[in-house]
Amino acid sequence: MANESRNPAVGECTIDIQVRYAECDAMGYLHHGRYWEYFEMVRTELLKQNGFRYRDLEAAGTFFVVYKCSCRYLLPIRYDDVVRVTATVIRTTRTRVDHTYEMKVGSQLTTEATSTLACVGRDGKPTLMSDELWSCTSANH
Amino acid sequence: MANESRNPAVGECTIDIQVRYAECDAMGYLHHGRYWEYFEMVRTELLKQNGFRYRDLEAAGTFFVVYKCSCRYLLPIRYDDVVRVTATVIRTTRTRVDHTYEMKVGSQLTTEATSTLACVGRDGKPTLMSDELWSCTSANH
Amino acid sequence: MANESRNPAVGECTIDIQVRYAECDAMGYLHHGRYWEYFEMVRTELLKQNGFRYRDLEAAGTFFVVYKCSCRYLLPIRYDDVVRVTATVIRTTRTRVDHTYEMKVGSQLTTEATSTLACVGRDGKPTLMSDELWSCTSANH
Amino acid sequence: MANESRNPAVGECTIDIQVRYAECDAMGYLHHGRYWEYFEMVRTELLKQNGFRYRDLEAAGTFFVVYKCSCRYLLPIRYDDVVRVTATVIRTTRTRVDHTYEMKVGSQLTTEATSTLACVGRDGKPTLMSDELWSCTSANH
Repeated sequence: MANESRNPAVGECTIDIQVRYAECDAMGYLHHGRYWEYFEMVRTELLKQNGFRYRDLEAAGTFFVVYKCSCRYLLPIRYDDVVRVTATVIRTTRTRVDHTYEMKVGSQLTTEATSTLACVGRDGKPTLMSDELWSCTSANH
Repeated sequence: MANESRNPAVGECTIDIQVRYAECDAMGYLHHGRYWEYFEMVRTELLKQNGFRYRDLEAAGTFFVVYKCSCRYLLPIRYDDVVRVTATVIRTTRTRVDHTYEMKVGSQLTTEATSTLACVGRDGKPTLMSDELWSCTSANH
Repeated sequence: MANESRNPAVGECTIDIQVRYAECDAMGYLHHGRYWEYFEMVRTELLKQNGFRYRDLEAAGTFFVVYKCSCRYLLPIRYDDVVRVTATVIRTTRTRVDHTYEMKVGSQLTTEATSTLACVGRDGKPTLMSDELWSCTSANH
Repeated sequence: MANESRNPAVGECTIDIQVRYAECDAMGYLHHGRYWEYFEMVRTELLKQNGFRYRDLEAAGTFFVVYKCSCRYLLPIRYDDVVRVTATVIRTTRTRVDHTYEMKVGSQLTTEATSTLACVGRDGKPTLMSDELWSCTSANH
């Protein structure tokens, strides 16, 4: 399909994150709202892997905002656990990117999630990705 | 249906929350991960409205953990905005509660979300709600 | 002293904040890093009391950044506690503002803190407060 | 002095932390309240270097709570910066530990901080460190 990216080289990234004390709640579990920071971190690295630094994109007026997301918390994650977080681009158009995420502690799958990001300008309005960004973040160009 | 709660008195709660500076990102928007804290706050109040304090439930060994969630961010929310957050119980069983959420700034709908919470014991294992909790949080008892 | 503000009308503000579940750590205590969000909230209200909205100041190019801070955590604060937070301006110059803070749960003093904020421009460089801001935030004008 | 630890092997630790997008405020700077999470992370590693896992200490009933802290923010830190954070134990007794902290981005010193932690039991009351913990975390035993 014209606007799908399936090339793992451009579309997948895995990082390890150690859970901070401050991120855990009274049960000693990683708070469900903090997971989104982890997904954001792996997206930052995925972009870098493709030659872009999100900080520079923002400085140049291109922003990605989360339009929708979902998450399934299969197993709890605890303080000091090392979590392996993988993000995969499953679909891109000139105005949006869909990711899936997986989190593992050791060999156990703890979390599955998805998100849709929209590309917007400084004014928050939807905008097209630049040719450069588009050609690097989609496999079929 | 036997295990649905539709009584607004027990199943709905609305609170106003003022967005903090620390909650906003470099775009000046409420960070998408922080929304879950808002939903958690309104669930705390909803429980109180039904005669329960979550802090006491935890002390007595009953915990609710988020099993899954989803969110659609329709419009951005900014620092110092006052957000009206509504949680509605749409389904309860003895082991789980489903909520929907709506957020508004003024008359504008900014956010729609859902979550499923599981009732667990101190060991993190699924458990049945107490009769007391069940009879107060479901309309059909 | 010329550059001190002691007028309680312009220099003091108290707000109540209910502790969120997500703000508490594995001990069930409000995490020490979250206190700074509370102090920031009361500064937002103190500015409003003086006729300024920090969001508008930023839009106009005036920013206050924390230059230094200190805190003493006398007693722990727990989830769902209502905390009364007071900020007092103890010294202002055209380029900085010193505050002290007190937190109470019921009649018990839980926390004492201080901060020094510097007034900076969009470039992060120190700048003078506008006449308008200066005359409203200092008692001696 | 009998209860001071100056052995760098047991008393100092440095880690690198990459600043997350979610940690930055509307100025694009690492929020001043988030620094305490970084200091907490380096303390976690410092303990490990000495043979202790804080998670296990807590499980066994030993907790360290921040009693006081201070920080000077010399230079701002931005999203995606890699921050080198060093914690040094400057004084220990059987009931408290004093640390200093330094943060650097590249060769530039951005931050200086201090904290005092108190050793408490599950009830939040001050308690003595175990012999094992004490002998490993102080240089003079």
